[in-house]
Amino acid sequence: MTGLTTTTITLDDVREAAARIAPWAHRTPVLTSQSLDRQLGASLWWKCENLQRAGAFKFRGAMNAVSRLSPAELERGVATHSSGNHAAALALAAQIRGARAHIVMPRTAREVKKRAVAGYGGEISFCAPTLEARETTLQRVLAERGCVAIHPYNHPDILAGQGTAALELLEDVPDLDTLIVPVGGGGLLAGTAIAATELVPGVRVVGAEPAGADDAYRSLQAGRILPSVDPRTIADGLLTSLGELTFPILRERVERIVTVSEQAIVAAMRLVWERMKIIIEPSSAVPVAALLEKRDEVSGKRVGVILSGGNVDLDDLPWAESE
Amino acid sequence: MTGLTTTTITLDDVREAAARIAPWAHRTPVLTSQSLDRQLGASLWWKCENLQRAGAFKFRGAMNAVSRLSPAELERGVATHSSGNHAAALALAAQIRGARAHIVMPRTAREVKKRAVAGYGGEISFCAPTLEARETTLQRVLAERGCVAIHPYNHPDILAGQGTAALELLEDVPDLDTLIVPVGGGGLLAGTAIAATELVPGVRVVGAEPAGADDAYRSLQAGRILPSVDPRTIADGLLTSLGELTFPILRERVERIVTVSEQAIVAAMRLVWERMKIIIEPSSAVPVAALLEKRDEVSGKRVGVILSGGNVDLDDLPWAESE
Repeated sequence: MTGLTTTTITLDDVREAAARIAPWAHRTPVLTSQSLDRQLGASLWWKCENLQRAGAFKFRGAMNAVSRLSPAELERGVATHSSGNHAAALALAAQIRGARAHIVMPRTAREVKKRAVAGYGGEISFCAPTLEARETTLQRVLAERGCVAIHPYNHPDILAGQGTAALELLEDVPDLDTLIVPVGGGGLLAGTAIAATELVPGVRVVGAEPAGADDAYRSLQAGRILPSVDPRTIADGLLTSLGELTFPILRERVERIVTVSEQAIVAAMRLVWERMKIIIEPSSAVPVAALLEKRDEVSGKRVGVILSGGNVDLDDLPWAESE
Repeated sequence: MTGLTTTTITLDDVREAAARIAPWAHRTPVLTSQSLDRQLGASLWWKCENLQRAGAFKFRGAMNAVSRLSPAELERGVATHSSGNHAAALALAAQIRGARAHIVMPRTAREVKKRAVAGYGGEISFCAPTLEARETTLQRVLAERGCVAIHPYNHPDILAGQGTAALELLEDVPDLDTLIVPVGGGGLLAGTAIAATELVPGVRVVGAEPAGADDAYRSLQAGRILPSVDPRTIADGLLTSLGELTFPILRERVERIVTVSEQAIVAAMRLVWERMKIIIEPSSAVPVAALLEKRDEVSGKRVGVILSGGNVDLDDLPWAESE
């Protein structure tokens, strides 16, 4: 995708993003659950981005990025390739600002995601389900229509927007020991790491990743970006590789990446549905699974978890399949 | 059940209940959804009692009632008969105050409800699934163990506790035109009606009831309590009849009862899951179904909805059956 950059972002960028998106984004609630606290032997605060507009934290970054466009750029419209939450978030953000959004989606994307994009007025171009086809199709759309590419995570305005969830969480609960969030391309994790480590010196920022898509874990071990090759996980928001912008931030500010099994993800997802009565998607269950598997390490701690999204197909729940 | 009373309650009782339960109850979030606002042509505020402790507003009343017991009464323990949320709420409230809770449950109660009561340390006595068996078994428990009966709705402390949800909602959003809540025994509706009509003169308080369990609708038409005979509805929290305490309050302060079909309840439940990403039980979907069916009447209004609970069996979702 064009428009890559290696600029980093600061806490001020996150604060400015928070002010910029405030008229449109929900300030999502921070829930607590004594039953989950007991089960984990820790004190947990759950930042509910599943209750964000368009059902995921992605709206924060997309709204921030679209809000920074000039009138001339808005006139040209925005474009991205995405099979999931960034697509819907960008379509909604563009709709709010009266701009057109062109979304390149793999033909194999879930129906529920296609409907969401269309519901927010996004124009969809379908392509084959490969990264190459997505990139090529997007380049064609950009060339034909002259619109502005908004990368899902390798974009400073997206990162600053994603950091606003942690900013709000730490405003509500300033004395957290640890923050844990899922990692795919690293936008949420990088934004969280900037906001948290600047606001609370000494706070631990941890990423959680499916073992079947552990490129962030391997990349941090290797000291260079290793691509996500043939990722296999139910957590369909976490399939992508780290980017040039996110990788150095994670390397500098993230304590570690914890990887978890598919079974643990499904069990954690169901646990949150049952105990907290909220709908989270598999990607959001990844940090919950990490906490359950590493419960010794968080014993007695004050832990913030960002539940990243809640977009699931209610006709295709993972526990229904296993019975 | 013993301990019936015809005393009514006041706004001050609700306020005192709010202060009394504050250390233990969640102040539940009030959510908004632009997509549902658009669909209904109204501005809606959703008070999420599905996110209350033990998964339902019932904890408010139970905690208030248990908190008012003397040390001698707490020593004797509490008892009730209930197949559902009041059972779990009373068990949890008793556990918090270090008292024993004896719950008479029909053998046919859902496993998930039995597990919840047991999980909060409640002692369960099973009985046949009839009101007569429930009453008889409870009388035996009361006689044998000398504990204090806490009726699920025909009890002033329960009513005052249930009224605290509307109190909080109106503190957060003072200028509502209409409040709509489900009605079974009438505890939530009566508590809401007291709080709302005292705080906001002229506010409309509406009850929503399954057509298959429309005893409140018929009772208000007839001007006397008509029992719920052979109720048939998926909304298993709304099977009971009005009581001597709740009926006169509804008669005086509730504008109307809207009845809805089973299909409308299931569709409304799914709509809330999909759009708001929260888990509500069928009883909570009843006012949502009423709004969808009467959308002309709320057009342009500011409406508060109390989503009463979120206790469902994830292995037995109503839309799975119909496919």
